[in-house]
Amino acid sequence: MPANKPPVSVLGLGMMGSALAAAFLKAGHPVTVWNRSAAKTGPLVAQGALPATTAAEAVTESPLVVLCLLTNDNVEKLFATLPDAVAGKTLVNLTNGTPAQARDLAAWAAKHGARYIDGGIVAVPQMIAGPHAYVLYSGDEQAYETHRPTLAALGGTKWTGTDPGLAALHDLALLTGMYGMVLGVMQAFALVRTENIPATEFSELLVPWISAMLGGAPEWAEAIDSGGHLTDVSSIAVNHAAFPNFLAAFRDQGVRTDLFEPFQAILDRAMAEGYEADGLSRIADLLRVRG
Amino acid sequence: MPANKPPVSVLGLGMMGSALAAAFLKAGHPVTVWNRSAAKTGPLVAQGALPATTAAEAVTESPLVVLCLLTNDNVEKLFATLPDAVAGKTLVNLTNGTPAQARDLAAWAAKHGARYIDGGIVAVPQMIAGPHAYVLYSGDEQAYETHRPTLAALGGTKWTGTDPGLAALHDLALLTGMYGMVLGVMQAFALVRTENIPATEFSELLVPWISAMLGGAPEWAEAIDSGGHLTDVSSIAVNHAAFPNFLAAFRDQGVRTDLFEPFQAILDRAMAEGYEADGLSRIADLLRVRG
Ligand SMILES: NC(=O)c1ccc[n+]([C@@H]2O[C@H](COP(=O)([O-])OP(=O)(O)OC[C@H]3O[C@@H](n4cnc5c(N)ncnc54)[C@H](OP(=O)(O)O)[C@@H]3O)[C@@H](O)[C@H]2O)c1
Ligand SMILES: NC(=O)c1ccc[n+]([C@@H]2O[C@H](COP(=O)([O-])OP(=O)(O)OC[C@H]3O[C@@H](n4cnc5c(N)ncnc54)[C@H](OP(=O)(O)O)[C@@H]3O)[C@@H](O)[C@H]2O)c1
Repeated sequence: MPANKPPVSVLGLGMMGSALAAAFLKAGHPVTVWNRSAAKTGPLVAQGALPATTAAEAVTESPLVVLCLLTNDNVEKLFATLPDAVAGKTLVNLTNGTPAQARDLAAWAAKHGARYIDGGIVAVPQMIAGPHAYVLYSGDEQAYETHRPTLAALGGTKWTGTDPGLAALHDLALLTGMYGMVLGVMQAFALVRTENIPATEFSELLVPWISAMLGGAPEWAEAIDSGGHLTDVSSIAVNHAAFPNFLAAFRDQGVRTDLFEPFQAILDRAMAEGYEADGLSRIADLLRVRG
Repeated sequence: MPANKPPVSVLGLGMMGSALAAAFLKAGHPVTVWNRSAAKTGPLVAQGALPATTAAEAVTESPLVVLCLLTNDNVEKLFATLPDAVAGKTLVNLTNGTPAQARDLAAWAAKHGARYIDGGIVAVPQMIAGPHAYVLYSGDEQAYETHRPTLAALGGTKWTGTDPGLAALHDLALLTGMYGMVLGVMQAFALVRTENIPATEFSELLVPWISAMLGGAPEWAEAIDSGGHLTDVSSIAVNHAAFPNFLAAFRDQGVRTDLFEPFQAILDRAMAEGYEADGLSRIADLLRVRG
């Protein structure tokens, strides 16, 4: 392993943290690892990592400290045990969280002489260090520029701004898109399974269809940015007329309707507000809370 | 236009019906068209279609009658005006509807000496006759085999079975997947727009990310078919821990939470039932109504 690569400490060795630590090791960085349950250090130590007995020890070992715990509540509590250890360090928090949490953690770090970068991992663990993985970053830009070559071991790096909340905002929005897709896919699989159609067979129709429809997203985006939602593809009126069929079929087949009832409510509202000739992009506007 | 192609009548000339009629014309079929509001026949007549003044007249003109109205209620009411005209005809109903509606319409047709095929169009109007469009069919298989060469003018043909409800079931399931994706994309765009991030810019991150995650659908399908949901990618526990961040961020940023609250409820239920180590595919099982 080349000794000239800067050291990095990884705190939190769940499915994701373990993938991060392994990627740093593979890129040739000296890696110190810590996890609340010590057993999870085993496989990484076998790959060359140094185990730390306490989080403070792990923080002391490297100028760059990457955190990947379950929640930012966990991070906040862990930070509270480390006030003296973090001075002069760069803390890169890749735990999922909200923009507000990121800003609070950044303020804590500043108070204790540490540099804070918040991040959002746009990948599942199996994608880390692969060609499609990237991480969104925001916060201390100078620290980011310093450590970017090290962070690049995880995948692409995408800077979103000095407001520490911006990485989380982008990350949550991307994951929101994914959750919508997941929710649609799960409901679709549940529906076909009621007629004993194998999900694997149906998936061969479902994936290309959703992909094709996802191709309309740039057009929806243009409509949203410009405010011009009129469509000749598929109007609010057509979708509103069809939607009761979905809820009826779910009920007839014994599939829960609750995931899709709010969508009916939004279509109802779009009709009531006179948007029947608009495309589905109108929905993004209706999701903003007014007043 | 070659005179040897069989004639077809198209009833309903909305965005979709007009695309269907235009595709039959382009493929060289003599096409008779009818629409409730007569004005919509204009562009098709200009392309060579024969306008019918009444629906009964349109039905009389061709052995194959394709319907594309807004809802099956409209179809049912139209059928009620046509009992004598339909005997010996093949009725292909491409209106969006439920499996139960398709079975009722098939029963009505049988009673009046007509052959009934129900269909679901897996395309938007702009895709009709293009390489990615196809139509799901179910019902009278012999009539389907007879008219398949004509129907092929619309795009691919996919037979789903002699139960007239099967095309609608597949179609609704595909559209359900699409609606989930739409809902996720709209919520994501609404979220980034709160920070004045252009949707067009964000769409360049969102589309590849959802596409990549959609690549996991075949694995979810295998888990659903086999009942083995354990994962090393992203567990119910991880998603459950993260999900409150989404609802909090929506609230903080002024975006409605109602489309995603039911997803939190399903994750809560998955945790309560002990599925924390399973993947998201477990949700498809939880969507089945029990008891
Ligand atoms: N998995 C994914 O696909 C994915 C993708 C993008 C982002 N993320 C995010 O990455 C983060 C980690 O996810 P994961 O998949 O690695 O989850 P995981 O496998 O469940 O691991 C959770 C980690 O958090 C630690 N932890 C939990 N509570 C703690 C506490 N109170 N104090 C200290 N450590 C604590 C756990 O330690 P123990 O081992 O001691 O329990 C473990 O190391 C989450 O925020 C997740 O949203 C995950
Ligand atoms: N657009 C799409 O992307 C798409 C994709 C797949 C499937 N579909 C399905 O295709 C069907 C038609 O959709 P579309 O986009 O063409 O909708 P559209 O543009 O709104 O057209 C609706 C059609 O239904 C007719 N109609 C409505 N009520 C009627 C009644 N009571 N009696 C007779 N005719 C009536 C309309 O006639 P008037 O002109 O007289 O109002 C018009 O021809 C729907 O079931 C839709 O779900 C649409």
